[in-house]
Amino acid sequence: MRLVRTKSEVKEWVNRCRVDGQRIALVPTMGYLHQGHLDLIREARKQADRVAVSIFVNPTQFGPAEDLSTYPRSLDADLERCEREGADLVFAPEDGAMYDSDHSTWVVEEVVSLGLCGRSRPGHFRGVLTVVAKLFNLFDCDVAVFGQKDLQQVTLIEKMVRELDMAVEIVRVPIRREPDGLAMSSRNAYLSHQEREVAPELHRVLEAGSRFLKQRGECAVEDLLDIMREGLSRFPAFRLDYLEVVDRKSLRPAVKAVCGQVVMAVAAYLGKTRLIDNMDV
Amino acid sequence: MRLVRTKSEVKEWVNRCRVDGQRIALVPTMGYLHQGHLDLIREARKQADRVAVSIFVNPTQFGPAEDLSTYPRSLDADLERCEREGADLVFAPEDGAMYDSDHSTWVVEEVVSLGLCGRSRPGHFRGVLTVVAKLFNLFDCDVAVFGQKDLQQVTLIEKMVRELDMAVEIVRVPIRREPDGLAMSSRNAYLSHQEREVAPELHRVLEAGSRFLKQRGECAVEDLLDIMREGLSRFPAFRLDYLEVVDRKSLRPAVKAVCGQVVMAVAAYLGKTRLIDNMDV
Repeated sequence: MRLVRTKSEVKEWVNRCRVDGQRIALVPTMGYLHQGHLDLIREARKQADRVAVSIFVNPTQFGPAEDLSTYPRSLDADLERCEREGADLVFAPEDGAMYDSDHSTWVVEEVVSLGLCGRSRPGHFRGVLTVVAKLFNLFDCDVAVFGQKDLQQVTLIEKMVRELDMAVEIVRVPIRREPDGLAMSSRNAYLSHQEREVAPELHRVLEAGSRFLKQRGECAVEDLLDIMREGLSRFPAFRLDYLEVVDRKSLRPAVKAVCGQVVMAVAAYLGKTRLIDNMDV
Repeated sequence: MRLVRTKSEVKEWVNRCRVDGQRIALVPTMGYLHQGHLDLIREARKQADRVAVSIFVNPTQFGPAEDLSTYPRSLDADLERCEREGADLVFAPEDGAMYDSDHSTWVVEEVVSLGLCGRSRPGHFRGVLTVVAKLFNLFDCDVAVFGQKDLQQVTLIEKMVRELDMAVEIVRVPIRREPDGLAMSSRNAYLSHQEREVAPELHRVLEAGSRFLKQRGECAVEDLLDIMREGLSRFPAFRLDYLEVVDRKSLRPAVKAVCGQVVMAVAAYLGKTRLIDNMDV
């Protein structure tokens, strides 16, 4: 496995892959890799001849009051994990290698990006789409793999690919959970012992909603939300950001909760840590 | 030469070019081709093995009060010209083939796009960058050719390519002028006989400015602008949109006019027709 730090090294590697007629898969990450990321790399191995992992804590997707400076980093451990999963290349650009100092070109999405996480993180998806577009262009990748945990992110990336006619296939990988149900996230490292104890309740609430909807087949969205809100209200440590039942494709608030057509999505703070989770029904 | 109407036909053609190891040049146009466009096609021929011309009056770059519906079209004549210049493919998508009805992903530039034409055409460059990004992705082109007449456009496209890490080389082709100096433009077709008579004064004013600056080597921007404003004021048919002396690279208003470092750029209306022109010094 090779570690490269510059765009020109990436291009060299890509050119060699192309000459050899190899299919390239890219797994864009912000590092601090956990089992969820390793699932993405494993999926990428199935999808292509060559697998590249990018590790870059992208500053443009963090708001001014967000956790850019404290975001957990562990390059050595990440490299070991990538190697073990059979990645061929890791691209870990130095800060500043990705953006010119006068960078002013952005990829924006103006509808789907406004709800859910976009509401409390203005500019976040502008940063995400821009860096992902840059990585897709750099790697000229045939396929890219993303986790379902970041539901709005993967939905927006699929939309960008479609609407900007990018020749990349997007593959979604299911959420990887801890044994107690907590969705794996690099940000779980922020949780205190007490917060970590209560964190899985976010998932349990979605499970309760899922059971309710499966029993009914369909129901009023408000009834489903009531069930879940009630469940969450028993744990006052959570400060709810949103709890929504949305259409699986458009991510617009669902008019009616119908089994198989909706996703339940939640974001909540535990202390300063923002957790998100979601579940198809 | 082949004429295709759909994205999937483009992709087939591109794939065949790729299998044959051929270098692809793209010439994006809005049709109603004149000698200026044909210069672009000729340059493209020099740059690549295969030349594609796109002909698409892109609705997203027209403002609500602009001339989308009246923009001149002449597909049959355009095809003849493309064939004569040795284009291999013309892509002329039907209206609606380029954008989904719920299109909401855009490429925006937030600094250079605000001045000059951007000031009086808000959203214009958003439409331009988005359609050009789409075409670059569709054609997977190695090189794309643009005219210098649309100075801000080509500057922004170069910036987009650099900042989104697109693997396309941008080639600029000098302005093609009528014998009397008027910069060729599809919009010249709108001019009445009387307007057409006075139109070349736009170029003459730039030439007067150029002579003035060449004599001095450098001068205060205001002095240079005074010369040109005075020249233009003799023709009251012009309604000036802007007249600026800008830095050649950043397109920011120049602090000082120095030979070799600045561009003089002008936009003015004759009746309802908006003309632009520019000149390096």
